[in-house]
Amino acid sequence: MTEWLQDMGGPSFAQIYAVSAELFRGRSDFQEIRVVRNQDFGVMLILDDAVQTTERDEFIYHEMLAHVPLLAHPSPRRVLIVGGGDGGLLEEALKHPLEAAVMVEIDRQVIEVTRRFLPDVPRGAFEDPRTHLVIADGIRFMTETAERFDVILVDSTDPKGPALGLFAESFYAAARRRLTPGGLIAVQSGSPLYQQDLIRMVRTNLQPAFPRIATYLASVPTYPGVLWSFTLGTIGDAPRLPAAAEVVRRTAGFGLQYLTPLILRAAFELPPFIARDLGIPAQWTDSA
Amino acid sequence: MTEWLQDMGGPSFAQIYAVSAELFRGRSDFQEIRVVRNQDFGVMLILDDAVQTTERDEFIYHEMLAHVPLLAHPSPRRVLIVGGGDGGLLEEALKHPLEAAVMVEIDRQVIEVTRRFLPDVPRGAFEDPRTHLVIADGIRFMTETAERFDVILVDSTDPKGPALGLFAESFYAAARRRLTPGGLIAVQSGSPLYQQDLIRMVRTNLQPAFPRIATYLASVPTYPGVLWSFTLGTIGDAPRLPAAAEVVRRTAGFGLQYLTPLILRAAFELPPFIARDLGIPAQWTDSA
Repeated sequence: MTEWLQDMGGPSFAQIYAVSAELFRGRSDFQEIRVVRNQDFGVMLILDDAVQTTERDEFIYHEMLAHVPLLAHPSPRRVLIVGGGDGGLLEEALKHPLEAAVMVEIDRQVIEVTRRFLPDVPRGAFEDPRTHLVIADGIRFMTETAERFDVILVDSTDPKGPALGLFAESFYAAARRRLTPGGLIAVQSGSPLYQQDLIRMVRTNLQPAFPRIATYLASVPTYPGVLWSFTLGTIGDAPRLPAAAEVVRRTAGFGLQYLTPLILRAAFELPPFIARDLGIPAQWTDSA
Repeated sequence: MTEWLQDMGGPSFAQIYAVSAELFRGRSDFQEIRVVRNQDFGVMLILDDAVQTTERDEFIYHEMLAHVPLLAHPSPRRVLIVGGGDGGLLEEALKHPLEAAVMVEIDRQVIEVTRRFLPDVPRGAFEDPRTHLVIADGIRFMTETAERFDVILVDSTDPKGPALGLFAESFYAAARRRLTPGGLIAVQSGSPLYQQDLIRMVRTNLQPAFPRIATYLASVPTYPGVLWSFTLGTIGDAPRLPAAAEVVRRTAGFGLQYLTPLILRAAFELPPFIARDLGIPAQWTDSA
């Protein structure tokens, strides 16, 4: 009998996936790790019953969490990734002309399992000489490191277990101290359909350290509800959205599969019902 | 024990909804009609096991299928809606200064059930003096009527049973003969994630009658996979996308909850992976 994986959205809706084969199942010090095959989405990585990434659409989440903040910075050289053990975010970030990408992941097994069963997610990212992999608690790393970064990306699981502290005001304050002038932070901030409280919490907790905040959206088919949010915080001026010509120039050769200049810009235009649900002023631009 | 409704996307994934109450269940001459309550989406209308519309997010689908084509026409006066028995599309269309909206629905019971259990979807649309409701087969109506319309909207279920003929080349050819000069047609064309064949079929079948075709997307949370496509066909020039100022002016007072000028424009910019899957040239605009 076919097993159906169930990934809950709200209390009364979920996405379900038929498991055509189980490739790996194990428990690390931090979470249950599963890798299964599904006819529609290919190989899927599941942590504690929540789908994290799939062969078929991993690029959407990773392009949106990497390139939007990296393009919002005029010339990022040093990037810090917190979490993101599957390496997909690292791979996208390394497409930029960085000097260094430091990745701090708490769970070594997630990296090992992804590299074995989903090698096309990180591709060669872990072998890139600019990559510095640190197996550690991101919260502790953030308070202890003396390094500075132009962009910090937080690719966490849901706010429970080891990831909870990654949504705290104290973590964001520590992150700010690790940024160069003009630096910025971007975090995955959950579903605008059933995690409005999470998005509000992220925005509230970012605010003291990052006075300018913008939430943007993308459609990630493997997450329940599909519409997904990311939140970007800057120290000084409001996040700078690059003009289309700059996006085209700076992403030439990236082979982007989701992001285009107009999709980048429209990602920040929240549909009015979402802005209202979040208590955010509508961000309409009349210049479209 | 809770019943979970299952709405299939691909062969191996689905969205599921817990039924907190069943409000109606019956079989019309054409299909099984159910109305249930769900904690996340409110009251839901289900036809033959496929969720059609919900209290919570009906406006997204209906705004996108009504206003995009109506705004692409400089001054629509007469609109024909084929299907759309829940009345949500009719309600949106009537926000424009129309002279007449003719709605041809095959299944009277869908209208009756919606008006009873989901009255906020049509609101007063069926009582509007500009509404002309025809209970008939849309395919037959299209070949028999002598009326002409500026815009035709096809709000069908999936291409099976009574809806199958609404995706046929002969239907689109008949529709073209019912359009005024400069007229256009818009149809719901399914999921760009797992109904690519359907979208390609719609585009192929529209082509002989409508030389200019554009597919656009929206995020409709209650449909499996959420990303949803609509396809617009024009007789003469390529579909004309109104400038932001015109959108603002023509939709003033509409109370739109999803559509904004920039979202309208970006809806036509298919993410590259979708354009590739559909075999459509990427529609990038560099002027963002």
